[in-house]
Amino acid sequence: MLFRCSLALALTLLVLRLDAREPQTSPPPQSATVRARALGVPFEGTPGPFNAITDVAGVTVGYSTLISGEGKLEVGKGPVRTGVTAVLPRGAASFDDPVYAGVFSLNGNGEMTGTAWVEESGFLEGPVAITNTHSVGVVRDAIIAWRVSKAGPDPTGFFWSLPVVAETYDGYLSDINGFHVKPEHAVRALSEATTGAIAEGSVGGGTGMVTYEFKGGTGTASRLLDEKSGGYTVGVLVQANCGRRPQLTIAGVPVGREIPDGAPFTKDTGSIIIVVATDAPLLPHQLKRLARRASMGLARTGSTSGNGSGDLFLAFSTANPGVATPAQPKHSVETIPNDRLDGIFEATVQGVEEAIVNALVANQTMTGADDHKILALPHDRLRAALRKYNRLAP
Amino acid sequence: MLFRCSLALALTLLVLRLDAREPQTSPPPQSATVRARALGVPFEGTPGPFNAITDVAGVTVGYSTLISGEGKLEVGKGPVRTGVTAVLPRGAASFDDPVYAGVFSLNGNGEMTGTAWVEESGFLEGPVAITNTHSVGVVRDAIIAWRVSKAGPDPTGFFWSLPVVAETYDGYLSDINGFHVKPEHAVRALSEATTGAIAEGSVGGGTGMVTYEFKGGTGTASRLLDEKSGGYTVGVLVQANCGRRPQLTIAGVPVGREIPDGAPFTKDTGSIIIVVATDAPLLPHQLKRLARRASMGLARTGSTSGNGSGDLFLAFSTANPGVATPAQPKHSVETIPNDRLDGIFEATVQGVEEAIVNALVANQTMTGADDHKILALPHDRLRAALRKYNRLAP
Amino acid sequence: MLFRCSLALALTLLVLRLDAREPQTSPPPQSATVRARALGVPFEGTPGPFNAITDVAGVTVGYSTLISGEGKLEVGKGPVRTGVTAVLPRGAASFDDPVYAGVFSLNGNGEMTGTAWVEESGFLEGPVAITNTHSVGVVRDAIIAWRVSKAGPDPTGFFWSLPVVAETYDGYLSDINGFHVKPEHAVRALSEATTGAIAEGSVGGGTGMVTYEFKGGTGTASRLLDEKSGGYTVGVLVQANCGRRPQLTIAGVPVGREIPDGAPFTKDTGSIIIVVATDAPLLPHQLKRLARRASMGLARTGSTSGNGSGDLFLAFSTANPGVATPAQPKHSVETIPNDRLDGIFEATVQGVEEAIVNALVANQTMTGADDHKILALPHDRLRAALRKYNRLAP
Amino acid sequence: MLFRCSLALALTLLVLRLDAREPQTSPPPQSATVRARALGVPFEGTPGPFNAITDVAGVTVGYSTLISGEGKLEVGKGPVRTGVTAVLPRGAASFDDPVYAGVFSLNGNGEMTGTAWVEESGFLEGPVAITNTHSVGVVRDAIIAWRVSKAGPDPTGFFWSLPVVAETYDGYLSDINGFHVKPEHAVRALSEATTGAIAEGSVGGGTGMVTYEFKGGTGTASRLLDEKSGGYTVGVLVQANCGRRPQLTIAGVPVGREIPDGAPFTKDTGSIIIVVATDAPLLPHQLKRLARRASMGLARTGSTSGNGSGDLFLAFSTANPGVATPAQPKHSVETIPNDRLDGIFEATVQGVEEAIVNALVANQTMTGADDHKILALPHDRLRAALRKYNRLAP
Repeated sequence: MLFRCSLALALTLLVLRLDAREPQTSPPPQSATVRARALGVPFEGTPGPFNAITDVAGVTVGYSTLISGEGKLEVGKGPVRTGVTAVLPRGAASFDDPVYAGVFSLNGNGEMTGTAWVEESGFLEGPVAITNTHSVGVVRDAIIAWRVSKAGPDPTGFFWSLPVVAETYDGYLSDINGFHVKPEHAVRALSEATTGAIAEGSVGGGTGMVTYEFKGGTGTASRLLDEKSGGYTVGVLVQANCGRRPQLTIAGVPVGREIPDGAPFTKDTGSIIIVVATDAPLLPHQLKRLARRASMGLARTGSTSGNGSGDLFLAFSTANPGVATPAQPKHSVETIPNDRLDGIFEATVQGVEEAIVNALVANQTMTGADDHKILALPHDRLRAALRKYNRLAP
Repeated sequence: MLFRCSLALALTLLVLRLDAREPQTSPPPQSATVRARALGVPFEGTPGPFNAITDVAGVTVGYSTLISGEGKLEVGKGPVRTGVTAVLPRGAASFDDPVYAGVFSLNGNGEMTGTAWVEESGFLEGPVAITNTHSVGVVRDAIIAWRVSKAGPDPTGFFWSLPVVAETYDGYLSDINGFHVKPEHAVRALSEATTGAIAEGSVGGGTGMVTYEFKGGTGTASRLLDEKSGGYTVGVLVQANCGRRPQLTIAGVPVGREIPDGAPFTKDTGSIIIVVATDAPLLPHQLKRLARRASMGLARTGSTSGNGSGDLFLAFSTANPGVATPAQPKHSVETIPNDRLDGIFEATVQGVEEAIVNALVANQTMTGADDHKILALPHDRLRAALRKYNRLAP
Repeated sequence: MLFRCSLALALTLLVLRLDAREPQTSPPPQSATVRARALGVPFEGTPGPFNAITDVAGVTVGYSTLISGEGKLEVGKGPVRTGVTAVLPRGAASFDDPVYAGVFSLNGNGEMTGTAWVEESGFLEGPVAITNTHSVGVVRDAIIAWRVSKAGPDPTGFFWSLPVVAETYDGYLSDINGFHVKPEHAVRALSEATTGAIAEGSVGGGTGMVTYEFKGGTGTASRLLDEKSGGYTVGVLVQANCGRRPQLTIAGVPVGREIPDGAPFTKDTGSIIIVVATDAPLLPHQLKRLARRASMGLARTGSTSGNGSGDLFLAFSTANPGVATPAQPKHSVETIPNDRLDGIFEATVQGVEEAIVNALVANQTMTGADDHKILALPHDRLRAALRKYNRLAP
Repeated sequence: MLFRCSLALALTLLVLRLDAREPQTSPPPQSATVRARALGVPFEGTPGPFNAITDVAGVTVGYSTLISGEGKLEVGKGPVRTGVTAVLPRGAASFDDPVYAGVFSLNGNGEMTGTAWVEESGFLEGPVAITNTHSVGVVRDAIIAWRVSKAGPDPTGFFWSLPVVAETYDGYLSDINGFHVKPEHAVRALSEATTGAIAEGSVGGGTGMVTYEFKGGTGTASRLLDEKSGGYTVGVLVQANCGRRPQLTIAGVPVGREIPDGAPFTKDTGSIIIVVATDAPLLPHQLKRLARRASMGLARTGSTSGNGSGDLFLAFSTANPGVATPAQPKHSVETIPNDRLDGIFEATVQGVEEAIVNALVANQTMTGADDHKILALPHDRLRAALRKYNRLAP
């Protein structure tokens, strides 16, 4: 069909027309190699090889990170501390091969587009993108353009797309009302998504985020279930922008109260987007149960989900390839009994907890718009706090 | 605060930079003056002066209609049959003075952004915009830009916006993948919104829509409750793009089966967005009940809400001005007892039914992309069908 | 295990201890042989052999009907016009072999126990029972006792039961506060459930019900899909107790306005429980979609779901036998693609519409408590109304 | 009205007909005077005078505790370790003066009747009763009988009741299939409900419960907000029957791993019912937000909400007396802005956490059916664990 070719061309042009004045993608910060576990934070459960959402086979993650400018905020000019994160359930095949999914809103002061169709159909038909609050629209439409450029009707036979794009707010550090995220940034996050080890901290959509009033952003973790529990993997990626300092709890230790310095806020106006992936063959209604459990991992880090927090969670399963495009009008899908879910629930809670702490640990102090400065969680003082409460892992 | 001024300037420039190659806004079609009631369709209940959602005091509606090009579809060039509709609960004050609201998804094969916060907060904090499926993003972000240009933090104290933007698909008649809707079209719909009589049919977001395989689009209606029932007004606006021809039922008459000609589709791949407004002082949980009733008005016209249909409904109340920005930390709001809701429920169902029929009656035959042609519901044959079943109003 | 045997004995004694003063089960009324279709009401779609929920293979329905006493109400003595209906998805195997299910509340002024677990697990683990509002508890506990008497742990491994029991209110005709329904009546409905033709009208839980201010109660209908649509069957059973007379619409004809006589009420204080069964292999999230469609069938008969109406719907699928008790920790279940659901949605809407009309047509005038009298829908006047509007089927 | 008098008489007889063979109500265990705080468990926030749900003015709590028999289980004979708890939002006026309420199901493997109407109407129209899983029905119908005996139509004008009755499972310690809870036990819990200090541990519905594999049951706590936050009170009552031993976390300390002895179970098959009360004037949609926060308090104690757990939460507000029975067809209710909810959210999370720990601390070791023995949480070892992790409060 002609229109697809034309569109592909149009999109190529769009991608090529990268505006030279736009902020450049920065390399992932060095600190991304340090992780909570290595610092001696004790966590339950067994992580996968990368301790990342990418431990779930097929899942890829891409970032587009925009960091530019310093000093006084000028709307439209910067400073810019933002970006786009893309989680692709089946990597490059994600648009053609939807996955079962479920969603949950713990506190809906946020946006996650596309959820009406996830809830209705049971499918996530493409990536989950995460950006800043005021760039959800541009990312959403860019995903449609990207998809149209690569394919015909959607896998369930329609000619339209209802992308899933979520957000947290980075206006404290970044010129959010300058609308610096452009379609090409969404495309880059999608097209550069990879398996394996992924960056954490101030990358992608998490670039300008603040977590428990420390520098936060993107974090990830995973859990492997033992063979008795099915040998499945659960992976988590968070874009963490929530919490007041006094709430911060790590491994049960009141870390926030131990390190009260430099907390800039007076109320919980952040948000957290949590994406849970698993290769366990769960049906949509079972995945909603996973999404709901994300609340409990968040709770372990001290949050009470403030009114200003957009706490929106999505879980998907990479099992059942081809589930949305069966060859026959009746087809089989795999599932597991409800009474075998407990291990997966635990893995979800544990993975969310660790991913949030990783988002904190991975970071460095950042200065942004109007010289607002957000301190990184100091590793030595974190260790001291854990030691004080006899929780420092050997 | 500086940033607001700067933003306002930026936006002004944006609005002024109207691209000459963009499709122009067309005048509302002439047929908009004919309405179902005038043709003899019998409806229950008493309409307001305009029989429109604007009968609810304060509500304004604006359209931006894009019609250009003919013949073969070239992605990015046209033909274009699309637009944007904006419903502003309190007119120009809508951003500063949120209204209580509730939402319902009858069949979520569609998008309505911002619903997580409506559900959570009970508030609709701005307009409801409706456009085509692939332009939700651009309209969403444009609303944020417009709002930022006009105001500071949102009325509940945050510096972010979560606009409500919904859609139905117009790709049969329009170059939907050409992304012709631009920020300025959203701004125009918002800024030109008016009270009083409003256009129907192929206007605004409804421009390229198809309803029961006749030309459809935007329709509106209202009901006045008698004094015993509180004297309230209920207004409805629909963007109707749903239904198969054989399903079409008007006033109980199987009109679709009586006029089978020229039905182009083989399955129900449309959608319908329904906005219900009232001045009755309803709380958020009561407004969800209204939203749910919209399903029953839709059912009266024959739909069974096909899998491909994005049937998303929102209801709001213009009562309780200032409800989101009280002077005191504890404040009073008005409500009415649950056992006085039946009249409002009936008005909602009746209003939805009439608004859908109005969307059909208001129209003229339209030819769009690839010379796809959608017939208007022929008025004479509608009257003949009503007469055949003894349902033609005198 | 000892406790099961003991319990079985206890229950046997319980059943045998039928109190002689209790109302006796009456035979189904003669009018149950007349159905709407035979009177010339035109319906869409093709019914199954029995035009009943029992057309879905395996489904059985049982009634326990309590009719006794006349004249003045004496609480605890009568008159009694009540009963219990039981729908068993897999007949006698229903407790051991749960079915996938989904629920929806259109207007929750009613009770359906057990729905939290249906929603969570996706399973209906036993029958659906329907009785009067004030006897839900006794029926619920009786089902547990019955189950315990017949089996060990529930099929998903727990030792508890969360029965699904729904209700509508019969206090206008019956001594509802006399609590005349006893455990043995629930047991009888369960144990006498049958396939094939089933009674309609004033039977079982529907005995004392009023529908659009005519004598109503239990109704059923079914639809067969053609082979192209999978050849599935959809069956519906309603316990209809809702609606005001002026609303009553049959086949699009304003029957209620044509027959205004003898309408006793001033507001919609009834309810309707709708059970949808199918052999189509639908997953839980797909069955919720069916449950939601029941609203649209109800809407076709004129209801606007008044505040006082408990409109609670449940849909289940008899496909996937053994789904809750798989031999392996991972197992396959059958499903059908979302884009093949439209026929099933239509069948659901049509089946609900016809089942409600059947509940009306099956009835005879009933006099109950305090000589309250509810007229049956007069067949001749129904036919006259259909003829007047040219809708009488040949 | 005659029927009310008759019913009252009937009920009186019912209550008087206490079967001598039934288990007797035992006094609250002595340990109920010891509470977590006194043992040195550090909690955040400021409790009310009684540190109980009864700190919310007007709330009363009543118990009916059934303890009888020892040794081998004989169904119908015992041993019995069960009961009924009743929480009355406005004490004796609860039936006549409904309160705004909201519900949430974290994991719906449980029953809470009446929730469809809470969700729909926004009202809790009477008490919340909590009992064992297999006695929900008898308690539900008994509440109706009690209510009918005391009043006419319900406050919103209907003649029916939809009581809220929840449950957790006590079949490990008690003869749950013997159905020992009778209507009079429900009546006693309702009629003996008091303000002030209330018993905890193995009382009422919590009698036979097991929490993190220690003896659990009923617990309560409260929080006072400072004047800046409105000076409101939040009270919590839990019936805790959930969790695996290794999960148990108290004040961040892995207490369950420190005290692994005598844990009898292999999976999480318990449940927890949480009731949150406040005098803050919250609307129904705001109370749902509180109910959702209960999840986070539960998470703090280590639970991941296993598949077998019925984790159902209800929140109500005692503000707005007379809200369901206004004198006028339009009336005012008080509310507080969403952005003032954070303190109430925190209080809810804190209160739930402390109430669960109180349920553990209040207990003594219990032996029940088949000599099943559940250890109490040993106070000395709890203190030792807290000391080990430097969390013992001075």
